[in-house]
Amino acid sequence: MEKIDIMINGLPGNVAKTMTASALKDDRFNVLPLSLTGQEIENKTINIDDITFELIKPDTRDEKIKEIKSQSASFIAVDYTHPTAVNSNALFYTQNKIPFVMGTTGGDRDKLEQTVRQASTPAVIAPNMAKQIVGFQAMMEYAANSFPDLFHGYTLEVIESHQNGKADTSGTAKAMVGYFNKLGPDFDVNDIKMIRDPKIQEQELKIPKEYLTGHGWHTYTLKAEDGSAMFEFKHNINGRDIYVNGTFDAVMFLVQKLEESDSTRKLYTMIDVLNRE
Amino acid sequence: MEKIDIMINGLPGNVAKTMTASALKDDRFNVLPLSLTGQEIENKTINIDDITFELIKPDTRDEKIKEIKSQSASFIAVDYTHPTAVNSNALFYTQNKIPFVMGTTGGDRDKLEQTVRQASTPAVIAPNMAKQIVGFQAMMEYAANSFPDLFHGYTLEVIESHQNGKADTSGTAKAMVGYFNKLGPDFDVNDIKMIRDPKIQEQELKIPKEYLTGHGWHTYTLKAEDGSAMFEFKHNINGRDIYVNGTFDAVMFLVQKLEESDSTRKLYTMIDVLNRE
Repeated sequence: MEKIDIMINGLPGNVAKTMTASALKDDRFNVLPLSLTGQEIENKTINIDDITFELIKPDTRDEKIKEIKSQSASFIAVDYTHPTAVNSNALFYTQNKIPFVMGTTGGDRDKLEQTVRQASTPAVIAPNMAKQIVGFQAMMEYAANSFPDLFHGYTLEVIESHQNGKADTSGTAKAMVGYFNKLGPDFDVNDIKMIRDPKIQEQELKIPKEYLTGHGWHTYTLKAEDGSAMFEFKHNINGRDIYVNGTFDAVMFLVQKLEESDSTRKLYTMIDVLNRE
Repeated sequence: MEKIDIMINGLPGNVAKTMTASALKDDRFNVLPLSLTGQEIENKTINIDDITFELIKPDTRDEKIKEIKSQSASFIAVDYTHPTAVNSNALFYTQNKIPFVMGTTGGDRDKLEQTVRQASTPAVIAPNMAKQIVGFQAMMEYAANSFPDLFHGYTLEVIESHQNGKADTSGTAKAMVGYFNKLGPDFDVNDIKMIRDPKIQEQELKIPKEYLTGHGWHTYTLKAEDGSAMFEFKHNINGRDIYVNGTFDAVMFLVQKLEESDSTRKLYTMIDVLNRE
């Protein structure tokens, strides 16, 4: 099988680095040695596994795109950049007919979707690329819509643990609370217990030491007031492998979509990727 | 609101006793002082909360039904009897136009459904009356059908704990394994870990002492082989309150159905009860 050309944007950011290192080891992909970056980035290049990636800033990318396109007749962009770049990057991709997978969060999401819907090339956009979590969320959404108030009279407790660097509450936990509340409990997202202390994470939660700097552990507990029943749901992610796999599955999904080309639909999410499999 | 007449069948069995004691305290219901029982039962009556219930054996019930009907113009039967009585009781109810809720497991289930489908009175039949567990099962069934292989490459572990008297493996756990296997793992139901030792239950699982004689705790754990992800689902039920509540909700559902009387459908499950709410 011919390798698929991909351009991973967002270097020298951590997530883009992880994606690039994994893609270089993945037989399915040929990684183009360049990456869109922010205007404020000073480095002109970055090395990953002995390969030098040219960092392309917003003010030169319109010229550079011709060179990029000359290097690859068709390629797919993977976007792990910055919330402030979400909308301008999407415009750049669609204007240059570059299909893309975007895992970057933030920005004006409505505008982002509108941009893609009006485009001639498809894109997969998802704030969470972990397929199993996306599937689990879909499951809870189904329950919330099908059986509202199923857990009427139950209390909810939500605990999430992430690496110390993450300042805000887990977006996944907040989204899940929305589904749980439809099922009965009246839970305030401000009551989500955030754990960021590596000592507590290692000693109490038993998170492996090597993942203290990169993990997302979530526990949702529903309890009947009279103590007669307890339902609990956990999703504990160590490291970023699960996001890498999901992102690459989304790339393969776009390759299929491009081959079909019988659809007018351009905007896809991870749910579409899941349903296809 | 007028009280609803119900007849609880299966006395002097434990579940029927629990249902009866709860129904006597429930303002919605008027419990008829008689109960269908097995031919082998020697007692002619049983007292529950100072009320004497006449036990009616199969060989006299065809005569007794006239007396029963003279006591109540219309009533709903609740069946917690015995696997061997499932089919003959269903015939008895339908022939005598008695709407019924059946929580008894076993028997010829296909024949049971056929009996009800051909009847002129409705019934709710469910091997598990705990609404929240039924909803949770529906959630897993949805995921299994929508996202087959979502957990490809994951291993599954299933642990269930029940009171020492329960000899067989949890039927709920077995049903759940069916859904989980569709999601990827290749798990053998014989590998379900059954815990029946009250010492382990109290000391390791921390099951409250008062529920050692009546509980159903289930834990399903999915692990990615590389240790990058763990998903866990628990449903821990203490005592029988949750089954009582579900059974009475099913009775109220039948009352609604009888008032509507615009449906030719007669066979319902707890999923229908959930969807109505």
